[in-house]
Amino acid sequence: MDRAGRAPPVHAARGLYVLTGQAPEVLLHVGSPARGARWQELLPTLVSGLIVRQWPDVGDPAAIRYVAAWAPPAGLLASLPHLEVVFSVGAGVDHLDLSDVPAHVPVVRMIEPGLVRGMEEYAVFAVLALHRGMLGHIAQQRQGAWGDADPVTATPARRIGIFGLGAIGGAVAARLASFDFAVAGWSRSPRSIDGVETFAGDATLAAFLARTDILVNVLPLTDATRGIIGAATLARLPRGAGLVNIGRGGHVDEAALLLALDSGHVGGAILDVTSREPLPAGHPFWQHPRVLLTPHIAGTTDVSGGAAAIAEQILRHRRGDALTGVVDRQAGY
Amino acid sequence: MDRAGRAPPVHAARGLYVLTGQAPEVLLHVGSPARGARWQELLPTLVSGLIVRQWPDVGDPAAIRYVAAWAPPAGLLASLPHLEVVFSVGAGVDHLDLSDVPAHVPVVRMIEPGLVRGMEEYAVFAVLALHRGMLGHIAQQRQGAWGDADPVTATPARRIGIFGLGAIGGAVAARLASFDFAVAGWSRSPRSIDGVETFAGDATLAAFLARTDILVNVLPLTDATRGIIGAATLARLPRGAGLVNIGRGGHVDEAALLLALDSGHVGGAILDVTSREPLPAGHPFWQHPRVLLTPHIAGTTDVSGGAAAIAEQILRHRRGDALTGVVDRQAGY
Repeated sequence: MDRAGRAPPVHAARGLYVLTGQAPEVLLHVGSPARGARWQELLPTLVSGLIVRQWPDVGDPAAIRYVAAWAPPAGLLASLPHLEVVFSVGAGVDHLDLSDVPAHVPVVRMIEPGLVRGMEEYAVFAVLALHRGMLGHIAQQRQGAWGDADPVTATPARRIGIFGLGAIGGAVAARLASFDFAVAGWSRSPRSIDGVETFAGDATLAAFLARTDILVNVLPLTDATRGIIGAATLARLPRGAGLVNIGRGGHVDEAALLLALDSGHVGGAILDVTSREPLPAGHPFWQHPRVLLTPHIAGTTDVSGGAAAIAEQILRHRRGDALTGVVDRQAGY
Repeated sequence: MDRAGRAPPVHAARGLYVLTGQAPEVLLHVGSPARGARWQELLPTLVSGLIVRQWPDVGDPAAIRYVAAWAPPAGLLASLPHLEVVFSVGAGVDHLDLSDVPAHVPVVRMIEPGLVRGMEEYAVFAVLALHRGMLGHIAQQRQGAWGDADPVTATPARRIGIFGLGAIGGAVAARLASFDFAVAGWSRSPRSIDGVETFAGDATLAAFLARTDILVNVLPLTDATRGIIGAATLARLPRGAGLVNIGRGGHVDEAALLLALDSGHVGGAILDVTSREPLPAGHPFWQHPRVLLTPHIAGTTDVSGGAAAIAEQILRHRRGDALTGVVDRQAGY
């Protein structure tokens, strides 16, 4: 019963009694069957009257209000007449063809605490590794050589630069600032974060790079950012700078990075993403002593955190509240 | 002039005019000549009337009030009739023969922000590396293999155990707790740290180990702790547990650790210290895929931070205030 004491109408939807005035709605999940199975259990407990279907079991296309996907098959979205929201199951939407999404349907990025925490953890791991010369220690261990305890650069003298200051970049910047690093961040539009120097727009890029000893990339991949970490950008970093890429492989001109690593202009790179994944056999990054490679593990959407994030958005949508994390079609993120 | 308007007596000490009522005092530094030279500049600016000599240039033994050393030569301390305080230049005093220090002379450990911060940084790096499976990724990279993005253990479900809760252990525990890990600490005597579950004394050791997925050792090396990380301790950790050693090599029974690594009972070890340093050529740790070795770099005393810490203690001593970080001769730390 609701607060006014009225018994709500009861709908029987595929064996589920739905205690709301709402007609049952279907969310179609396109992705890992393991996650799909968990979301089929979890989401209906969070959103009354929601039924989760797992692609390719579409059922009645007219019943589908929501799609949650990384890369929906071409034409799918346009075939759903009552589609109301598309959810990306990752923080990025670069694998999703935005031109395939009907113009009136918002696309929502995945921002959930597990994913943000994963990116924060990886960024802190990688920045500390470069700060403390760990790639050199790993290479020395392989050679059976006990290195010198080089003088440590004091933390406040180490200048970290975060490329991208959205939900993830902001969290990474704040976390690194709590270690007393000198943290700055660059983004297209102006941002403000406690304890972090912020730069905005192309005109400030050179100044941002010139003061950055360790560059951490968390930019979204768009037409404007593809290849942004190329020869010109790397040349503007101080000699010996480090690079951490937890954005996308497409941000980096890998040939330019190799040249910079081999010349020593870039002292080390920790790369969670590459232009092709898996990285092809024989690629020079595999055995490069100044490169640490991981297989795209920095931020993965937590199954229950992801369900909670989608549930919250659907409830906002039902109440008529504004969705959060809606992708700007023009900007591409 | 002092507050009462009296002009203080002026002493001429080796060309330095000392504007205090204090007779000039000598601190003898036994250690790296580079640090000694910097302390000869720095300390007199922080402590009026202090003269720094660099071993073996002892000068008049009767003028020496303070010795700052890692391992003073046998017999030196007993030969200084007016010795008042011995300062360790490191956080540990295990290299210092306490039986060689006259009974009335306090021995003070080095606790300075740069050293504590270095230990914190290393501990966070190493815990995140083990938490996120980085030793496996490093080994896979070497083999040219792109691994799977294994499901990440949620941070709050990862149980970190800090072995030793002094100034360093306490800072490490608090820092890791800020990442939302489940952090506990073990020490001989009871401690209390916000957000950290604390265990004290031998009777609680088994319970502490049983709930610890990643053990971080920052214990002092004493007769009571030598070899404490042996077969029995390792067996009490859950299968697949990780070990971070930033204490001393002497804490670990390296043969027992190797067996545990090879059986998979210990999933990975990050070792900054070993029983012999440099680690001898051919030791199995060098090429072990589950071991990351670094050459005793975790915490190094910052030259200016160390000078400031010693200066503060000398000023406390002159005022008659209690010194901080005084070593308990009985406990050995």
